[in-house]
This record gives sequence, C-alpha cells and structure tokens, in this order.
Amino acid sequence: MAGLFEEHRELLDGARNAARERGYWSAFSEVPRTYGETAREEGRAAFEKLLGKPFDLDQSSPEARVGAEVSPFGPELGITYPRAHPDALIAAALTAAPSWAEAGAEVRTGVALEILVRLNRASFLMAHAVEHTTGQAFAMAFQAGGPHAQDRGLEAVAYAFEEMSRVPGEVRWEKPAGRAMVRLDKGFFIVPRGIGLVIGCATFPTWNSYPALFANLVTGNAVIVKPHPAAILPLALTVRIAREVLKEQAFDPDVVQLAVDTQEDPIAAALATRPEIGLVDFTGSSAFGAWLREHVRGKPLFTEEAGVNSIVIDGTDDFDAMCQNIAFSLSLYSGQMCTAPQCLFVPKEGIDTNLGHKSFDEVASSIAGAIDFLLAGPERALAVTGAIQNPATLARIEEARGLGRVVRDSASLGVDGARTATPLLLAVEAGREEAYMEERFGPISFLVACADSTDAIERATRAARTRGAITAALYTRDASLPERVAPLYARAGVPLSVNLTGGIYVNQSAAFSDYHVTGANPAGNACLTDAAFVAQRFTVACVRRPAAA
Amino acid sequence: MAGLFEEHRELLDGARNAARERGYWSAFSEVPRTYGETAREEGRAAFEKLLGKPFDLDQSSPEARVGAEVSPFGPELGITYPRAHPDALIAAALTAAPSWAEAGAEVRTGVALEILVRLNRASFLMAHAVEHTTGQAFAMAFQAGGPHAQDRGLEAVAYAFEEMSRVPGEVRWEKPAGRAMVRLDKGFFIVPRGIGLVIGCATFPTWNSYPALFANLVTGNAVIVKPHPAAILPLALTVRIAREVLKEQAFDPDVVQLAVDTQEDPIAAALATRPEIGLVDFTGSSAFGAWLREHVRGKPLFTEEAGVNSIVIDGTDDFDAMCQNIAFSLSLYSGQMCTAPQCLFVPKEGIDTNLGHKSFDEVASSIAGAIDFLLAGPERALAVTGAIQNPATLARIEEARGLGRVVRDSASLGVDGARTATPLLLAVEAGREEAYMEERFGPISFLVACADSTDAIERATRAARTRGAITAALYTRDASLPERVAPLYARAGVPLSVNLTGGIYVNQSAAFSDYHVTGANPAGNACLTDAAFVAQRFTVACVRRPAAA
Repeated sequence: MAGLFEEHRELLDGARNAARERGYWSAFSEVPRTYGETAREEGRAAFEKLLGKPFDLDQSSPEARVGAEVSPFGPELGITYPRAHPDALIAAALTAAPSWAEAGAEVRTGVALEILVRLNRASFLMAHAVEHTTGQAFAMAFQAGGPHAQDRGLEAVAYAFEEMSRVPGEVRWEKPAGRAMVRLDKGFFIVPRGIGLVIGCATFPTWNSYPALFANLVTGNAVIVKPHPAAILPLALTVRIAREVLKEQAFDPDVVQLAVDTQEDPIAAALATRPEIGLVDFTGSSAFGAWLREHVRGKPLFTEEAGVNSIVIDGTDDFDAMCQNIAFSLSLYSGQMCTAPQCLFVPKEGIDTNLGHKSFDEVASSIAGAIDFLLAGPERALAVTGAIQNPATLARIEEARGLGRVVRDSASLGVDGARTATPLLLAVEAGREEAYMEERFGPISFLVACADSTDAIERATRAARTRGAITAALYTRDASLPERVAPLYARAGVPLSVNLTGGIYVNQSAAFSDYHVTGANPAGNACLTDAAFVAQRFTVACVRRPAAA
Repeated sequence: MAGLFEEHRELLDGARNAARERGYWSAFSEVPRTYGETAREEGRAAFEKLLGKPFDLDQSSPEARVGAEVSPFGPELGITYPRAHPDALIAAALTAAPSWAEAGAEVRTGVALEILVRLNRASFLMAHAVEHTTGQAFAMAFQAGGPHAQDRGLEAVAYAFEEMSRVPGEVRWEKPAGRAMVRLDKGFFIVPRGIGLVIGCATFPTWNSYPALFANLVTGNAVIVKPHPAAILPLALTVRIAREVLKEQAFDPDVVQLAVDTQEDPIAAALATRPEIGLVDFTGSSAFGAWLREHVRGKPLFTEEAGVNSIVIDGTDDFDAMCQNIAFSLSLYSGQMCTAPQCLFVPKEGIDTNLGHKSFDEVASSIAGAIDFLLAGPERALAVTGAIQNPATLARIEEARGLGRVVRDSASLGVDGARTATPLLLAVEAGREEAYMEERFGPISFLVACADSTDAIERATRAARTRGAITAALYTRDASLPERVAPLYARAGVPLSVNLTGGIYVNQSAAFSDYHVTGANPAGNACLTDAAFVAQRFTVACVRRPAAA
C-alpha cells in the first residue's frame, strides 16, 4: 500500500512546496482540452447514464432511497440515493475507523492522493453534475467543481501531511541526572479525533467540501459526507470514487460514507451533536452556523457562512477596465459566490479617474452599462451568470427592488427552462445600513453614496468586522492609500484586492496562494488552508518507558 | 529592537530544534546551584521585601487594591495588588495592541525571549512566591514554578514562531493565461485574534499559564493575565517583568496586564465573554471549564481541567522499585498535580512479580509501606508533600475515608502552621465506580480490585475517555502487553508510561518532549505544546494587486 504514497510523492512534494511559497501553482489543469479530445463527450455520456436511476453506492444498511434534485437549468435529475439512519452511518464509521487510524500517515496520504487523481479524471462528469445541481455555467462548473476543488483538496492533504510530519515517531529521551543518565524510549502516535462530519452546500458542493474531507482522511478520521439535498450528485460521485480506492487498498470503504437527507427530514443536526462525531465542517447559512456553534461543544467546528463583501471605489487609472472588472464580478454565477461583492462604496461627490472626474451617478451608470454589455445576448450571458440555484433567490431579488433606487434592474435571460436572473444594482444613501449591511445572497448589489473615501473604507471594514466578509476590493489612484488601509482590512479579517482589472477578479480565490476565510470575522473560520485548519484534526499520544541501557 | 531577536537567536533555534526532535532538552537549568552562590539568599530577601506591602505595578486606572493570599505553610502574605475594572483593562489592551501587532514576529519574539530570560534570573524569588501561594515544597516550587515553567513558555514561543514562519511575506503570483501571464503581487500579514485572556490556577500558576501567555504575545495578541485569587504573586511578578521589558523596548506596557480579582467578586466570566477578548486559556475546574465552553463562542478556548489518572498494575520485574515509584507519585505535592494518579487498578487475584506472586492485599500494603517509608520524619515528608493549597482539600479527604476500606490513612505532618496531609489510600471493589470514577483532587487514591488485567485496562482507558485523564501508567512483565494496549490508551487521548522505576515518575511532563493534555478526552485541549495550540492564535490577511509588468 505504500506504493500509492511513492507513486504520488512528486504530487505531494509539489503541493507542500507550493503551500510554503504560496505563489501560483496548480496540480490539476483547468484547461479542458488538456483532458483529451473525447473527455468532454465521455463525461456527458457518463452523466446522462446516471439520470433517472438509482445511484449505485454500496453502502451498508440503507433504509430507503431518496433524492429530488432538479437542475436549475430545467430538468429533474431523477436520481435516488441510499439513505441510512445516523445510527447505522456512525456504527459503520466506527467499524471502519480503527484500521484507517492505524494505517499511518503515509499510507493514508497515498490513498487520499489516489482519490484526488481519480476525481481529476472524472472532471467532465463532475462538471455536468455540478452544473445541473448548482446552476453554474458549464465552464465554471468544470473548473470550480473539478480541478480547482481538487487543488483545494490537495492543498489540505499537503498541510495535514506537513503537520503530521512534525510529530516524531520513536525518540530516545536522555536526561542527565547528576553523573547518571535517565533514559526513556518514547513513541509518538497520531490519534484522529473521531468521525469527521462534512456538511456540503448547494452552490460549491465539491470546492467547499474537499479541504475538510481530505484533511480528515489524511489525519486518520473516518468521514461522513452530508451533501445539501439540492446538490447530492457531486458528492455522491466523490464518495463513490473514494470508496472504490479504499476497497482496492483493502480498507473498509465505510471510512468514507455519504449521508443523504431531504429538505423535509434533515439529519445534519442529529449527526453533528453525536458524541462519536469528533469534528464538524459546515458550509452554508449563518443561521445553521450559529446553531452549530451553540450545540456542537468541545469539538472543532469549522464553518464558512455569510458575509457582506465590499468594493471601495476611491478612484481609478483605468475607468473602463474597472467597470468591466466589477461588472464581471457582479455577474459571475449571478452573485451566488461567497466571494461576490455586494456593497460598492463610492464617495457621493464622485471620484477621480483617468477620464476625469466621474460623478456618483456616472460611476453607477457606467457599471450598469458594463453589465449590460457583458450580458448582451442570452447565450453569452448564460455562460457568465449560469442559473439561479435556489428559487428563494428570485424572491429575494423581488423584495430587494424596494431597498433603493434601481440603477440596473434584474431580469430573466429568458432561456427555456432555466431559472436565471441578471444583476440588480441599487443606489442607496450611506445611512440606509438596514438595506445593505446584511447579506442579500444572489445578484443583488448596492452602490452606497458615502461622505468620502474615509467614510467608505470605514463602512467596508466595519461590514467585514461585524457582519463578516470573505473578500474586499479597493480602487484608487492614491499610491499610499492601500498601505494605509491595509491594517484596517487585516483587523477586519478580510483579504484585500487592489485595482484589479483584466483577467483577475475579486471573486477568485486560488488554492496554494489565497487564504480563503480568515477566521477573524463572522464569515467563518474554515481557512483554506492554514495550519489551524488541519492541526486540530488529530492529537498526539505517547507511550514512554525506561530504555534498555 | 531587532537586537533582542538576534541576541536570543541561539535560544530560539535550540528550542525550535528541540520541539522537532522531542528528545531531552532544556534551556533553563533546574539545578539551583548553577544560579550562583548568593541567588537563593537574594531570592528570599526579595520575596520578604514584598510581604505586607502594596505590590508595585504601574497599571493604568486601578480602582482599588485587593489581595488576601495566605501561605499554605502558615503566614499571610499581606500583599495587595491594584484591581482594575474589566472595561479599563480592555480599553488599555486595545490601546496597546496595534503597535504590538504591527511590530512583526521577529521583534515580538525577541521581546518574549528577553522576558523569559529575565524570569529565569528571578527564579529564586519566583520559587518563594510559588511556594507560599501553592504550598509546593521549595525544591518543587523552584523547578516547576521557575525553569520548568520557563521551558514551557519557551516551547510555546518556538511553536508559535515556527507556525508564523510558514506564512510568506511578499509573494509574486504568476499564472499563465494562454500566451499571456497574469501577475499579482501579494503581501501576507499575521493578524492577531484580539486580546488573549489567560486564567491561571492556584497550584501551578506559572507552569500552566506561561505557554498561553507567551504564545499569545509572540502571535501579536495583547494579554490580560487573570491569576487565581489565592496565587496572585507569581503572575504579578511575571507581568511586572514583562511590562519592564516592553517599556524598555518602547512598547506600551499594557500589552501585558494583570487582572486581579477576589473569591467574592470574580471577574473571569465577565472578561471571557467580552467581544474584545479573542482567545481564552483556562486552567482549573471542570465546572468553570464547562461554563466557558457554553458561554465563550466563536473564539478559541483552551482548557486544562480535571481527570481521573490511573495506574494499571499487571505485574512487575521489580516489585520494590515499583512500590517506591508509585509511593512517590502519590505523595509528591500531596496529589495536587493534574498529573497525579488517582486509581490503581489491580487484578483481585494479585499479580506476578520478581518476588513471586503478590496478592491484592500485599500490593496494597506494600505501596502503603513505601509511602510510610518515603514520608518518615516530618521534615523529609514536607519536602515531598508540601502543603495543602486549599482547605477544601482537607474536607475532601475527610469525606473520602468513607468511600472504601482504608489501606493507609491520611494524616497531618504536624508541622507548625502548615496545612498538610499525607496520602489516603483506599481499597474498593471494581463495581464501586461512584467512588473512584470521578476526580477527587488531592492526596486521595484508590486501589481498585479488578477481575483481571483486561478489566483493569478497560476501566483505566474508559475513565480517561469519559472522565478525562492527563496521565496513565502500566506495570507489566508481559513484553507484548504495552504494544497491545497502546492503541486503547491512544484512543482515550492519554499518554502512557510503562514500568517506570527509579528517578522518573508518571507525574512528570517534560517540555519539548511530553505533550501535556492531548485534547482527545474531557481533561482539556490545552496541549503543551502542539501546532493546534498556537496556530489558532493568529490569522493571515492578504493584500493583492496587479504587479507592475
């Protein structure tokens, strides 16, 4: 079994090195054509074969089959999954756990890397699964659901392996005691925390789950993966591949199990509070995040929840490029990214740009115009916005229209069967905090007329500090401003992107370089990935005894 | 200021290396004579000068002076300390924090190391302060309160520095995009969590507080140290030295503050729940530990609480040495160590030894005899047992007498003025779990008559798993038994000491080698020290912007 570790050692070394240097690095190509000419077609065919059938997953003790996924692009998937009782899932995990824990870090790491490599080969199938559960456009579903998620999983493997490597195995302890010497032999063992519960979300089922899944696996914890009932398929495929590899390597496949539930009969709360669950990872609403914080005690809990992301516009050297960049950030996946900006803080007297002074209204209308231009033509638009994952988001857009002056209205793309909505852009006075200072998930954003740039930055950093934020951006011509405000953003626990134009967007968080969710504001603490994200997933036990002289 | 970092670099490198290798290493000598001929006398004189006076600590906004420490060896200390309102403490910490956070890891580490070196020079004064607050015998107060505590503090510095070193500063991120290249410059910054609250205990005020204090400091958090009202002096001296060094280095001394309270008017709960407090470290009772877990949400909480430590006696190759070793472990500081054994699980049919078969009663009476021999003569005894820190412990001994058959009774040493009690040793049937399966703090232990060794190990590991444990020991002649049971102890989250005889005891936990408190059972999660103990004390913020081509 050490074979897999040796086989993938270069991959691991590359990832460990990248995690230290945090420059650009990627193990899994985001370029579709590198997967071969037939990969896309094969992926589609494999996806279509799954539709309308029971999903083949040989888990023990299923008590029923459930599943009601509907593509945000229209069709019902018609796939059912085996549902098991929490008791059965936990019993199976407890049976599978000991030999996994005792396998050692290298063997487990080899298995985890093999799972990632096989997931990578299935990237086109995964792209379809992610597309038709989350509503992401295909290109994004491929990248974010496939290679980018795999990179994030690999990053967690690298961090976890690194931390475990710091624990020595056998050690001779020799302490001088007068002229004599006291000698002990000590053995140090990695001890997993218990069963890891990973609760997935409906918008990024793989990207947001892989870090926890793989960090748990490598540190020796059995894992129960609880997908969102609207986005089961991507994680069902993931679990199936993980179980295949485990079985081939003579492990009990119940080291990784899928826990399926329904909107009507959820099981996350029941699982999370079981004493056998030693770790909980959750991506989703602040409401359930708060519930978990209240009820899940004495075990590590990692969350990614809501936030109010912001852009402060103080000025720009390239007005058109700035508007285009912001337009794309607001439109991409219809603002359904945890990294999408919601508040654009702009001085009410306007800003200084390469095209001269621009009034608040000119900034607003130029961004609106850039969105219109970007989304001209439903097909091109759909490739950017994708579909709306949850019907509740449409209702939220409807309500939001009353919260300010509509600068740009949201509209359906009118694509047959697909639930779509372009960005709604509202202008509000800074005093209307009740409108913009809470997360309004989806393609809803606010141009907030501030007293000046100082006021804008105060509001942006306060929003992050008090309501949470995962991203922040700043546009300015003042070369010294970013340095001056960096400590404010740092204290607010939010990474800051400055003057982004061209092919890089505030929404994008790159594995091995960008830390995602700092843990220093209410948006959560599931940093992808730092030492704190992995080091709590195991403890160290020691056996010591007098050494033979 | 980088001067201090350079000055102490060798110390830091030694500690980092020791923390990786985890063999024997110590920076601060535990041998009194290495401190010079006059050090002991100077320490005593310095201590006596403090008695009966207001303690000189120039903290801002004191509202009163309080202090009612009484030496467990008799005299009242008569020292008063400035008490400040939590609001004032937090306001002062918030004022001091930014420049400390911005000073950078190396500068902070240099300051922390200088504080440790000065604490080391004050080890004899500290020994008296620890002796007359905790009741530890002088030799132990010197070692555990001085150099051993300093080593634990240094270990935390090394771990924290190591983790921060893994975050790069400035990075160029270059991603190929077709034939072009997207370039970003990224800067990564260590961001402290807020103010660290360190709540000390009455038995090991320095040893149990230094890891958190120094880990917080090095990671950039201002610290409020809240000593136990019965053991203020050791931490007051510590804070005073820290503030001296901070002031000399042109930092606001309020980076480290002392928060004094009284038994009647405690402030730990009020402080811990303040939003400005970003981290809580606590050593003390399970009751307050549970309260903190319930009320301190969304911030890291590290605790060391109660537990039921055990020794399983399956057999021995050196019966006399085993009995002597156990006698010392039970007698040392009158069982008031978090590492002291409470339950001795022994097969009811007796054990196999180098002196032939020994019945359960023979094992019991031999251990009792070894205690009597060790504690023959009140002066010699006092040097081992020290005094009883809390009068409640005497009442607990009194109650405990009814919990089993008294094999060896506890008694006062009859030393003038000192509150003393020798070990109480009770024999009980294994079924009497209500007697022995909860912590009975102090010199109270149980010889539990088990069905056999398997039963003994089941009970010992279950006690650890369900009630918590910080240490466990096993005596056996069966060469394969330790290996067979190691996974059970590992899963119970407790380090295991096998066949200890001679000059090493289960109570002892050595910095840079033994992990203290695993986090995998209810005894707490304040591992001294692993990566999880330090990595949660800071987060990383990033500023990224397009790179100049």
